[in-house]
Amino acid sequence: MAHYSKNFLFFLFSTLSIVPFSHQIQHPLDSLTPNEFIQVQAIVKQSYPTSNHNLTFQYIGLEEPNKQVVISWLESYSTTPPPRQALVIARINHKTCEIIVDLSRNRIISDQIYNGYGYPLLTFEEQNAAELLLFKHAPFLASISKRGLKIEEVLCGSFAVGWFGEKKKNGRIVKVLCYYLDGTVNLYMRPIEAITVTVDLEEMKIIHFQDRFMIPVPKATGTDYRESKQRAPFGPQLKGITVVQPDGPSFSIDGNRVRWANWDFHMSFDARAGPIISLASIYDTEKQNFRRVMYRGFVSELFVPYMDLTEEWYYRTFFDAGEYGYGLCAVPLEPLRDCPANAVFMGAFVAGQDGMPIEMPNVFCIFERNAGDVMWRHTETMIPEVLVTEVRPEVSLVVRMVSTVGNYDYINDWEFKQTGSIKVTVGLSGLLEVRGSKYSHKDQIHEEVYGTLLAENTLGVHHDHFLTYYLDLDVDGESNSFVKSKLQTTRVTDQSSPRKSYWTVVSETAKTESDAKIKLGSESADLLVVNPNKKTKVGNLVGYRLIPGSVTGPLLTDDDYPQIRGAFTKYNVWITPYNKSEKWAGGLYLDQSRGDDTLATWSSRNRRIENRDIVLWYTFGFHHVPYQEDFPLMPTISNGFELRPANFFENNPVLKVKVTSFGRWPNCSI
Amino acid sequence: MAHYSKNFLFFLFSTLSIVPFSHQIQHPLDSLTPNEFIQVQAIVKQSYPTSNHNLTFQYIGLEEPNKQVVISWLESYSTTPPPRQALVIARINHKTCEIIVDLSRNRIISDQIYNGYGYPLLTFEEQNAAELLLFKHAPFLASISKRGLKIEEVLCGSFAVGWFGEKKKNGRIVKVLCYYLDGTVNLYMRPIEAITVTVDLEEMKIIHFQDRFMIPVPKATGTDYRESKQRAPFGPQLKGITVVQPDGPSFSIDGNRVRWANWDFHMSFDARAGPIISLASIYDTEKQNFRRVMYRGFVSELFVPYMDLTEEWYYRTFFDAGEYGYGLCAVPLEPLRDCPANAVFMGAFVAGQDGMPIEMPNVFCIFERNAGDVMWRHTETMIPEVLVTEVRPEVSLVVRMVSTVGNYDYINDWEFKQTGSIKVTVGLSGLLEVRGSKYSHKDQIHEEVYGTLLAENTLGVHHDHFLTYYLDLDVDGESNSFVKSKLQTTRVTDQSSPRKSYWTVVSETAKTESDAKIKLGSESADLLVVNPNKKTKVGNLVGYRLIPGSVTGPLLTDDDYPQIRGAFTKYNVWITPYNKSEKWAGGLYLDQSRGDDTLATWSSRNRRIENRDIVLWYTFGFHHVPYQEDFPLMPTISNGFELRPANFFENNPVLKVKVTSFGRWPNCSI
Repeated sequence: MAHYSKNFLFFLFSTLSIVPFSHQIQHPLDSLTPNEFIQVQAIVKQSYPTSNHNLTFQYIGLEEPNKQVVISWLESYSTTPPPRQALVIARINHKTCEIIVDLSRNRIISDQIYNGYGYPLLTFEEQNAAELLLFKHAPFLASISKRGLKIEEVLCGSFAVGWFGEKKKNGRIVKVLCYYLDGTVNLYMRPIEAITVTVDLEEMKIIHFQDRFMIPVPKATGTDYRESKQRAPFGPQLKGITVVQPDGPSFSIDGNRVRWANWDFHMSFDARAGPIISLASIYDTEKQNFRRVMYRGFVSELFVPYMDLTEEWYYRTFFDAGEYGYGLCAVPLEPLRDCPANAVFMGAFVAGQDGMPIEMPNVFCIFERNAGDVMWRHTETMIPEVLVTEVRPEVSLVVRMVSTVGNYDYINDWEFKQTGSIKVTVGLSGLLEVRGSKYSHKDQIHEEVYGTLLAENTLGVHHDHFLTYYLDLDVDGESNSFVKSKLQTTRVTDQSSPRKSYWTVVSETAKTESDAKIKLGSESADLLVVNPNKKTKVGNLVGYRLIPGSVTGPLLTDDDYPQIRGAFTKYNVWITPYNKSEKWAGGLYLDQSRGDDTLATWSSRNRRIENRDIVLWYTFGFHHVPYQEDFPLMPTISNGFELRPANFFENNPVLKVKVTSFGRWPNCSI
Repeated sequence: MAHYSKNFLFFLFSTLSIVPFSHQIQHPLDSLTPNEFIQVQAIVKQSYPTSNHNLTFQYIGLEEPNKQVVISWLESYSTTPPPRQALVIARINHKTCEIIVDLSRNRIISDQIYNGYGYPLLTFEEQNAAELLLFKHAPFLASISKRGLKIEEVLCGSFAVGWFGEKKKNGRIVKVLCYYLDGTVNLYMRPIEAITVTVDLEEMKIIHFQDRFMIPVPKATGTDYRESKQRAPFGPQLKGITVVQPDGPSFSIDGNRVRWANWDFHMSFDARAGPIISLASIYDTEKQNFRRVMYRGFVSELFVPYMDLTEEWYYRTFFDAGEYGYGLCAVPLEPLRDCPANAVFMGAFVAGQDGMPIEMPNVFCIFERNAGDVMWRHTETMIPEVLVTEVRPEVSLVVRMVSTVGNYDYINDWEFKQTGSIKVTVGLSGLLEVRGSKYSHKDQIHEEVYGTLLAENTLGVHHDHFLTYYLDLDVDGESNSFVKSKLQTTRVTDQSSPRKSYWTVVSETAKTESDAKIKLGSESADLLVVNPNKKTKVGNLVGYRLIPGSVTGPLLTDDDYPQIRGAFTKYNVWITPYNKSEKWAGGLYLDQSRGDDTLATWSSRNRRIENRDIVLWYTFGFHHVPYQEDFPLMPTISNGFELRPANFFENNPVLKVKVTSFGRWPNCSI
């Protein structure tokens, strides 16, 4: 979905001097600091003075050092840290430029014009500017007036237009669609249908206006979700409940490095990906050292195609990370509501269109989760005169970020477990994208409406969400292999057993990329990333398992344009050899992309992936058929996956975990 | 797996007078009280005096009143409650007897001999007795001695023998297998392989002894899981964390009826099923009344086939509910470990083999879960000068029971959400069933070993767990239909849209049982139980959706004997018309059953299920390939499903939920 103005977040740092800056040694994977953003834009502006250049910064982020450089630096902390570099994607005089700035040398080291298909991330500023054009556009004002709507209650948003087989490039355009407030803050439940305004972002002017028909704007009644606006009857209210940690949290944060229980990892933030977890290692109590698990993990793309063929809807096939910026859309988390009482909050910075840093306060929270689950247990009743009951409650560490891409709120959790598991969960809440409709009862509908009638004049449109994660696992080192352990039914035909069948495990190591593409759902298999050079004492390859959650795959046909662009969702699992340039499953330039730079195209080279540094790409999703419970705001639905150690440890790594002691009830006086 | 002595739980009530008994009006679905158990056994013994009858009680439980009777009673509380009846399954003079006792009339009202295949639940007492026989059996003692093992460190367990095509009935037999302690409590990691002793339970004598070979008993080292036995190096230890509810819990328990937030339900306990949730209704704030969701839900069967064809293993294809009693194997929950600090505990009663009540303390806990999740949220950044952030944290209610069926611990959660969802989660922990082996390294293995080498001489055997839930949904009343809403890809061929495809929802209402059998995984569909007689204002049928978790189906061939007995696992979803006698998916008599009384056979009648009182049966499971992390004790793995309202409410039922307020940190002084 489209994203909108975020004025409230825009605290611009006008001069270097006001930026508080810690002078501790920077980690090579730290996000760019405010000072670095300022330095980057200054360097770029020096080469392309805004006096005679039309310059906008579409993206500024850390240009990752080479992986080997980072690993060498880590192995000998004393050496000079790798040089800090930034990747800039700018529009300069209506061309897309990829610029690499070296911050230590204070200069541009690479500067290229990109001439391929697709355009960079949309900035908030240009989306805002496009939206404002409408309010000076007479035909638009006439259309609003004709509908009897008050112009001051109208709000508009910019929508990426996609690609539908056009041969000629369209230029950087968006479609602007509008909503109506007038008695609610829930604008998404009040679409003003039929009016589509196309804006050229480079010229910043309206190039097409269309008003096709008139249907009622759905009513405001019952759409406002603010607590202050609710009226009786209310439901039952719960008494207070909270989590306490009398001795404080068990994690420590040193810069952007987090240590908790047996885990050590680095957190960073990117305008496009949102949270990035790097260098996750786990302490092996028996071996008495940290062992590497994941070099880098993040949301690579988020594909959200709607299933409505009407003129105003067919193109709504969004790539939220590549078009709008999954990080750019992060929102400040509410203490005690978005995160529990024991959470610690952290902020981040992104660059505005002018390259200056923008502070995003409280976009991360980190907390220990004590959900009342059991990490392991056993009651032994078989030993005479002895009752053995051993139980260890589960406590895990959660890193949370919420990205609100327009109407939808994505609650992203990276959860670290003492057992060695990394669990990823994404919860979806927020508002549906609904279509205004003439219908007020299902019995009136005798045509395809592409959705569910949720309320009078309100259709919740069918759609999907696919989240593709980049997971550069380094299981006990870089050289890894991908193993599919198929659970294969075997018939017993030789009368050797009273049984007629059983299943056994047939393990296949993927040699090349095509061996590793998997559509889940059809067969039973354990999926493992192993280190073929490391074995346990009894000879098993050390590994981590991918445990899928609820499995979802695309339903569009392969030749449909949105699916060509989103071809990376065709398989739930892909493995590629590590390649620094392959980060974005849908390509570096998603806006109006044509699918020529996706995970699917890279993978078609069918490179060798055995005993190499490999990257696991995992896609899960949601097919969303709306129900009335989703109106006017959706209760959270969740999905995700888990990476679980599989013969990584010699035995249960939490066997020796001691239960922390405190009284039955803390001595609280409130 | 087999179950063992539970002496520690056996507090026998010797006379009526010592039983504390509340004289409140009993709910017709309450489990039998201690007094009722005593009354039942007295009535049965009167007809079958133990002086001249060989009488054992294999099962005593509530004989459910007819559903219509219960519903009428509920609708007019003033009428006399339905008569209390008990179902007794007894072995009387070596025959299986089904006896119905009417407690109000103090007499037997039905008494039938069962002559079909299969035998009733095994009692702990007879399993114990069988196990003790070995210690007086010279060949067994010789086998132990030959292995150099100390007899006083040997413990044995009884295993159901299954059915493998034998024409003739075997009689009630078990196989007894033994384990070795000697330095550990983790007997399951120390199987004494190759010795199988077959015991006739009716004659209580050994009828077959076999000792096939000698291999080492796996070492005790590293197997003990007790906190007190762990030695350094320890891992990092977490600081204390707990949940507090300064004003107490938000739920109330009246007898066995629980009220929390918008939920009202009844809890009971059965020796075979474990926890039973009945009459779950949810308060509809808009309609201002309670609306029915589920009449009754429980674990109907738990099928655990192992995948090892060797002589000592091929028959290990357990039906834990029907053979051992999922409730009978419930264990006392540990405060602060099995359940959080805010949990309330409840006990239950089962009958011993002599019919007398046995108290099972703390088998249930009930608590409010505050896991740090978000129930719904939205941040609205589009409205100029206004930042809207509305977030409601998730708090749910959990009813937990742990059943330890020998080695495995099943953590059963019924979770009630304010959104109207009922979420079922089963966590598996405890100990693997391992096979002793001559191998100490994987490189030595060049044959099929049916498992993973977990440690020296220790193979973790491949196996499955399938849990089949009985879910008698009554969505807004009894008459319901099952609807499969298929997400169907449609090609666009008429150039009417720039798109080439989309998906739409094609709903099919199941007319008969065969329409409703579903193997999940192959197609995308929403599965709904709707009330075809109730619509929302805009005309949608009110319903509840089944949301599967991770999908698992059987891998055995249909003609394999264990799979014939466990044929109810063939489909993940079945719908049957409500029939009081159809409760146990594998049949009433599971021990040595032959699959002639399963859900699969009932369903083959292909009865009409449209607009009827229907029952949803859902099976999920785990294919368990053991990994070294499961040794010597498994970290919990979980799976489950959710029942979620789908056009049941007119709109989001938690829109008006108010956030409870308390300070950022309770004022705690510990």
